[in-house]
Amino acid sequence: MTCVLILSGGLDSTTLLYKLIDEGNEVIALSFDYGQKASKELDFASLTCKKLNVPHHICDISEIVALLNSSNLVNPDNDDVFEPQDTVVPSRNTILLELATALAITTGSDEVYYGAIKGDVGDYPDTTPEFLKQINELNKVNNYEYIPVKAPFIEKEKYEVVLEALKLGVPLDKTWSCYVGGDEPCGECYSCQSRIKAIEKAEKILKEGN
Amino acid sequence: MTCVLILSGGLDSTTLLYKLIDEGNEVIALSFDYGQKASKELDFASLTCKKLNVPHHICDISEIVALLNSSNLVNPDNDDVFEPQDTVVPSRNTILLELATALAITTGSDEVYYGAIKGDVGDYPDTTPEFLKQINELNKVNNYEYIPVKAPFIEKEKYEVVLEALKLGVPLDKTWSCYVGGDEPCGECYSCQSRIKAIEKAEKILKEGN
Repeated sequence: MTCVLILSGGLDSTTLLYKLIDEGNEVIALSFDYGQKASKELDFASLTCKKLNVPHHICDISEIVALLNSSNLVNPDNDDVFEPQDTVVPSRNTILLELATALAITTGSDEVYYGAIKGDVGDYPDTTPEFLKQINELNKVNNYEYIPVKAPFIEKEKYEVVLEALKLGVPLDKTWSCYVGGDEPCGECYSCQSRIKAIEKAEKILKEGN
Repeated sequence: MTCVLILSGGLDSTTLLYKLIDEGNEVIALSFDYGQKASKELDFASLTCKKLNVPHHICDISEIVALLNSSNLVNPDNDDVFEPQDTVVPSRNTILLELATALAITTGSDEVYYGAIKGDVGDYPDTTPEFLKQINELNKVNNYEYIPVKAPFIEKEKYEVVLEALKLGVPLDKTWSCYVGGDEPCGECYSCQSRIKAIEKAEKILKEGN
């Protein structure tokens, strides 16, 4: 299959890229430049695609974010990025997944993938199985052809994605999770904390398994 | 109610703006600049909003269209704009309606409106009642709050919208339908033809009614 993957450059979507390639798919990666503080994410996404020889499109949606003017993710004066609610752009995943759907149609691809995980549930409404079901119902009627949207990690906890990453040989140090930006991850924001705990748990499981 | 209306500057959405104001709603208008040939549309949208004292946002999505690179609407070398299929950007209405949904949330508005009409059915998949139902089902789960998407003209033929426009005193010569662009409507493209026939039919009905 040929598929369009939304690639943030973070741990979950990068692992999904490795998994899709491992399963024999042809992948087109799509990243979004929305003026985020964490532009390291995009750098890592580009490096990963270059390394894996995957076509990589970066879509500049900063004009949209400027319109919405609502997210602490993109406000350089606001360092309060510790609560999930603070980092939500309304309808974010729907907008990004429909841009990916449009790219799938214009490139003749079969499917769209994104790296939603179970750990996001409760924090973000648009990473739930119910959301995934509804965006697929919509995709059945909003174009001349049906492009399925898939999220293979949607029932997985983050530590399970780390286990998958380690199995697939994903270089974790070439993925970026921190919301704050800078040369090194802050280690304190919601996203850094979630990542650190997941890696600790996965390493513990692997150690106990040996 | 406060609502966000997607305003193209064409006949249908301009009439919907007049109708919403007539019914006592506070309206925020949202137009999209996607590098379309028919930039007169946007000029008319701006003039109408100024005249009616309606806040008007223009969101530049030309970067997205550049990515998709698929539509004859925006290709200056292609004058074949006579078939509806030629003028379709994949997932177009979903993307625009979700941007409107996001703007509704950031501005504290209650609802989103767009000017889909029955005459579009069969030509565009994303103007059908089924599409409207599914985007509402999606909107119930993709944000912390449910923003309904409404299309009061979705069961109306274009001549019925013209009748509504004449009743509401919409200046039809300050709306733009032509896909081709230029100083005057071409009179030949699909959109011009559809408009001309609808106005003729509405005028005939009014004449016979007198």
